[in-house]
Amino acid sequence: MINVGIIGASGYTGAELIRLLTNHPKVKISYVTANKYAGQKVSALYSNFYGICNLSFEKFDLDIAKKKAEVFFIALPHGTAMDVVPELLGSSRKVIDLSGDFRFPKKDVYEKWYKMPHKHPELLGKAAYGLCEINREKIKKSNFISNPGCYPTGSILAVVPLLKEEIIFEDDIIVDAFTGASGAGRSASKETHYCSCDENVSSYKVGGTHQHIPEMEKEMGKISGKEVKLTFTPHLASFSRGIYSTIYCKLKKSISTEELLKIYNNFYKDDYFVKVLPKGVYPEVKSVAGSNFCQIGLEVDERTGRVIVISAIDNLVKGASGQAIQNMNLICGFDEKEGLKTVGLIP
Amino acid sequence: MINVGIIGASGYTGAELIRLLTNHPKVKISYVTANKYAGQKVSALYSNFYGICNLSFEKFDLDIAKKKAEVFFIALPHGTAMDVVPELLGSSRKVIDLSGDFRFPKKDVYEKWYKMPHKHPELLGKAAYGLCEINREKIKKSNFISNPGCYPTGSILAVVPLLKEEIIFEDDIIVDAFTGASGAGRSASKETHYCSCDENVSSYKVGGTHQHIPEMEKEMGKISGKEVKLTFTPHLASFSRGIYSTIYCKLKKSISTEELLKIYNNFYKDDYFVKVLPKGVYPEVKSVAGSNFCQIGLEVDERTGRVIVISAIDNLVKGASGQAIQNMNLICGFDEKEGLKTVGLIP
Amino acid sequence: MINVGIIGASGYTGAELIRLLTNHPKVKISYVTANKYAGQKVSALYSNFYGICNLSFEKFDLDIAKKKAEVFFIALPHGTAMDVVPELLGSSRKVIDLSGDFRFPKKDVYEKWYKMPHKHPELLGKAAYGLCEINREKIKKSNFISNPGCYPTGSILAVVPLLKEEIIFEDDIIVDAFTGASGAGRSASKETHYCSCDENVSSYKVGGTHQHIPEMEKEMGKISGKEVKLTFTPHLASFSRGIYSTIYCKLKKSISTEELLKIYNNFYKDDYFVKVLPKGVYPEVKSVAGSNFCQIGLEVDERTGRVIVISAIDNLVKGASGQAIQNMNLICGFDEKEGLKTVGLIP
Amino acid sequence: MINVGIIGASGYTGAELIRLLTNHPKVKISYVTANKYAGQKVSALYSNFYGICNLSFEKFDLDIAKKKAEVFFIALPHGTAMDVVPELLGSSRKVIDLSGDFRFPKKDVYEKWYKMPHKHPELLGKAAYGLCEINREKIKKSNFISNPGCYPTGSILAVVPLLKEEIIFEDDIIVDAFTGASGAGRSASKETHYCSCDENVSSYKVGGTHQHIPEMEKEMGKISGKEVKLTFTPHLASFSRGIYSTIYCKLKKSISTEELLKIYNNFYKDDYFVKVLPKGVYPEVKSVAGSNFCQIGLEVDERTGRVIVISAIDNLVKGASGQAIQNMNLICGFDEKEGLKTVGLIP
Repeated sequence: MINVGIIGASGYTGAELIRLLTNHPKVKISYVTANKYAGQKVSALYSNFYGICNLSFEKFDLDIAKKKAEVFFIALPHGTAMDVVPELLGSSRKVIDLSGDFRFPKKDVYEKWYKMPHKHPELLGKAAYGLCEINREKIKKSNFISNPGCYPTGSILAVVPLLKEEIIFEDDIIVDAFTGASGAGRSASKETHYCSCDENVSSYKVGGTHQHIPEMEKEMGKISGKEVKLTFTPHLASFSRGIYSTIYCKLKKSISTEELLKIYNNFYKDDYFVKVLPKGVYPEVKSVAGSNFCQIGLEVDERTGRVIVISAIDNLVKGASGQAIQNMNLICGFDEKEGLKTVGLIP
Repeated sequence: MINVGIIGASGYTGAELIRLLTNHPKVKISYVTANKYAGQKVSALYSNFYGICNLSFEKFDLDIAKKKAEVFFIALPHGTAMDVVPELLGSSRKVIDLSGDFRFPKKDVYEKWYKMPHKHPELLGKAAYGLCEINREKIKKSNFISNPGCYPTGSILAVVPLLKEEIIFEDDIIVDAFTGASGAGRSASKETHYCSCDENVSSYKVGGTHQHIPEMEKEMGKISGKEVKLTFTPHLASFSRGIYSTIYCKLKKSISTEELLKIYNNFYKDDYFVKVLPKGVYPEVKSVAGSNFCQIGLEVDERTGRVIVISAIDNLVKGASGQAIQNMNLICGFDEKEGLKTVGLIP
Repeated sequence: MINVGIIGASGYTGAELIRLLTNHPKVKISYVTANKYAGQKVSALYSNFYGICNLSFEKFDLDIAKKKAEVFFIALPHGTAMDVVPELLGSSRKVIDLSGDFRFPKKDVYEKWYKMPHKHPELLGKAAYGLCEINREKIKKSNFISNPGCYPTGSILAVVPLLKEEIIFEDDIIVDAFTGASGAGRSASKETHYCSCDENVSSYKVGGTHQHIPEMEKEMGKISGKEVKLTFTPHLASFSRGIYSTIYCKLKKSISTEELLKIYNNFYKDDYFVKVLPKGVYPEVKSVAGSNFCQIGLEVDERTGRVIVISAIDNLVKGASGQAIQNMNLICGFDEKEGLKTVGLIP
Repeated sequence: MINVGIIGASGYTGAELIRLLTNHPKVKISYVTANKYAGQKVSALYSNFYGICNLSFEKFDLDIAKKKAEVFFIALPHGTAMDVVPELLGSSRKVIDLSGDFRFPKKDVYEKWYKMPHKHPELLGKAAYGLCEINREKIKKSNFISNPGCYPTGSILAVVPLLKEEIIFEDDIIVDAFTGASGAGRSASKETHYCSCDENVSSYKVGGTHQHIPEMEKEMGKISGKEVKLTFTPHLASFSRGIYSTIYCKLKKSISTEELLKIYNNFYKDDYFVKVLPKGVYPEVKSVAGSNFCQIGLEVDERTGRVIVISAIDNLVKGASGQAIQNMNLICGFDEKEGLKTVGLIP
């Protein structure tokens, strides 16, 4: 039984960490912080916790934090996570950071895409990139994990086998992806007002300006050994949880859907949370909602020489808090699946 | 580890039993039937099960059933459940029937409200009514459980403390309740077409004709020791899972919201799955969706001498499959909460 | 062709006035104000207006207002409307106020339920209550209309025939009503966040504290000639537009559904916007969404001596902006239906 | 005032024709057929029509049809429309066919993609393709219109200016498009069950097998004068009405977003129903829902040399029935906008 702390626990990813860890058999949540809501019960913000989670948010305090927990999840916004990560690492605590602050080895890339200065460049490149299926061995040896972004999780898992096998052109990839409204965070905004969002689809950061682009290109590049260049369009759709990605790749050579599925099944044969669907079946947001699974389906379009790969994850689980727990399981020596076995909700 | 069978496993309550039991630590699903889909994989009907549940539906066969499992969940429609229950009971198997077929001690009540003849009146009155919080001791001693209806579960839990304490007039109760679309079953229909159902509310069986009325009146009557008479209107709202009940009761005497909440908290103090909310907080469908919890909130309207009690459950979990598993836990001597601890999904 | 102004045009009811009046054949919108958004295009807030409505919001200015328009719609929040109404009336302009500021003849009732002082008690009782079907003749002769609240519109239309014919007990009425999220206004809030609101139902102001209660009781009382007392529970459901009311009334005498429908059909025979549905058919939110219609259905529950009346309106149209235009049509001598004939959207 | 008939009026596009034509000032609906529902009221299928449309469905009969109407909308499924079109044309009636039966000049293309034999190849190539903005002059002179498919309407309008100006490579176009559930038709199915469809996204006919592909390629090819080849993926999203298309095109030369918007604005300057949005603003499904408008937005991705064009229409209006009425207006000499001016619903 280990004690864990959640820093920045009032947002959706923080609340999802609490929800999932509440039933994790090897973990006790001993410390949850949210400066803005210090003193308030978690259940006052999230009514599903009444009678279940009796914790109150505290104001973050390093000395108290160190005493209370061994492993910390940082669920703070980009730019704020970097304020607490160094201190916790310096206190020899295990840190899993869900923000984008430590995903890049280079300061200039971070500052260009996140449009803010990085205060701790000395830590860049120190974190293991926490995409468990791709980076499992490095993660196991690390005390500092940079948890992947939601879009990168969905799209990298979808194309890794293609890049590894050099089946597609590395500079002709298009990622068209839909996030659920929880991806926009708990703060109320015009975009997430029910009346703006329900039965709607909209788009944002069109034309290659989303900060997840360099993360995808970097990680895909590492795998392929070549420079990857992709066009990415994020959309907002009317579901609470999910990332649905449709990825268009140009084939280097003719290959059938069946052959590709064989490659995928083989690639992911030991990865419990990645499910490659049979030919003619495609992922659905609802099939993975509430779960840590990633579904992948694909189809070759022979007329145009492209392969279309589709993936679905729950942005709050496999795209954030679930994957963070999967990382915790790895670095703490637990079964990778512990606390994460819930099957996606259908209906 | 016990082996369980699910008879009629292709519908929503059947699929939910599979989903929940997949992660129950003391149970192995060894037999799932669906005559219509015999030979097909469960995952072919419900894509969340790809790579998770490898079972195929079988055609029901008593001899095979008896060999394969000790405990049976009957998730067949009303009128069909009564065809298999007697045989399984006769083979000394434990039976939890989710249909309405064995909820009444009297043939004529069943036949009047369900509008079909009862083929096994000799078994009427033999089943324990499986509302665990109200009937726990009887359930523990029984091998034959009649699992409550979804509407009765939500409304009975909401008013039991009032009836027990004789605070309200037993013949002046109004239950206004909303079901999610899964309550209408998996079969496609005009009513459950997305275009008919989303962003909509509609009503059905208005004017006191729903078959859950006698079930509510009977069970409430048992608790109060007086004849209960209620007006009930069921509505269909745009959510997949949930029963949201607003119940209007006429107070026999003046009493405050605070006093009533004290009575409720005391009444349910040992019931993990019933959560009485603090004053000013009311249940929400989303707070319990995907979980076995029942939330209850209430408020006295002094101007009109009524108390308004609101309850929320997930119709597929506490209103059906989750409660069935809670019953199984009781009759098998497991911890009542086993396999049912998932916290409701927010957001 | 008359010129109309909309004061407080940036909220949902303001935007709906613009949307509907854009195609009104006898009206030109000449002035729209929103102090907070002064200088911005209407289309910058509501993208459906790009290329259709080229107006910009202005800061309210009485002198400019007087010059620009003859008829004014006040779509300001309660407590703010009373700041501009007197000046516009004083300038001999026709005023249709959508707020609650002038719905009561008595200062103390307003101040008790709206919890704020009334600055212009001298104007109380001067406005005609703008429920066209009930008050048409008074409206036609008036220059100052107080447009009804959304909940009162739905519930008063539903029970008027019963009260008029003295069929029900005036002090035993329960109104259980669901509003769509647009009823909470355009401002983003936790309650209207898509993730809080979709596939959910919640309740607020339970126990008789909603400010629409005295409005309903007053208007129903006027019609029945007796004091009316009702229990009212408002809920928030997952649809953008609509008020869905289920009303429970205790019958004074036995009467059939058919007889009641006859009374309703006769009562509303000249009211184009009220549609009494045949026996066994009940209103749906979607059937009236986007339209100025009110659907009414009912059923007698003989077992309990109650009649259940259900009504559905679009809260932004018949419950606000559409009814305001209906009032404008009446006071300007236009056909009552002008600009309001759109049929509700199905699917 | 002309009399119009709707053949196959019980489906969603038929009902939408009735809904829109009910308020068309120059039209009387005199004949609606639906063999399956002959004798039933329109309002029995679509409750928004109670008290508004008193028509009953009839069984199609050529002799009666000819007597009753001058203009016919054919809202029958593909493969069935071809059974009635020849007879109506032969009787010198004006025909607007909403099916795909007469969209191709060549029999083999139809039979390959629609997978059924064509019974009237002699009529292929005779209909004017009813995409009004592109083909207005031909339509005006024709008595036989083949109304475009929903996906082609959204995507062709989005790329025509690019093809006309030879700005993009004609053989490197990707169309990623989402349809609302009404696109799947009124018949209940697993896919359109609320529980399968809400808060979900799924995909179908992935890999280049959708029958709208040759229609897009043919019409785009006509405009560009070159062979067009595109990859198309259709998805089903959780909204009732809408087609949301994101289109990826490879630029032949460097060009800015601003320059492209200028070209688009100029191209569509006389087309009331096409709205080109300003830089940084992108279409939304809700902005056009319930209306005949098509919104277009675009952005250049300089890093990857692509332009991303996004368009939104209501599949039942501009994508079917509204465009059919726009065609009727053109061939009957009415104002093109008549009966189609409703602004999209927000919120």
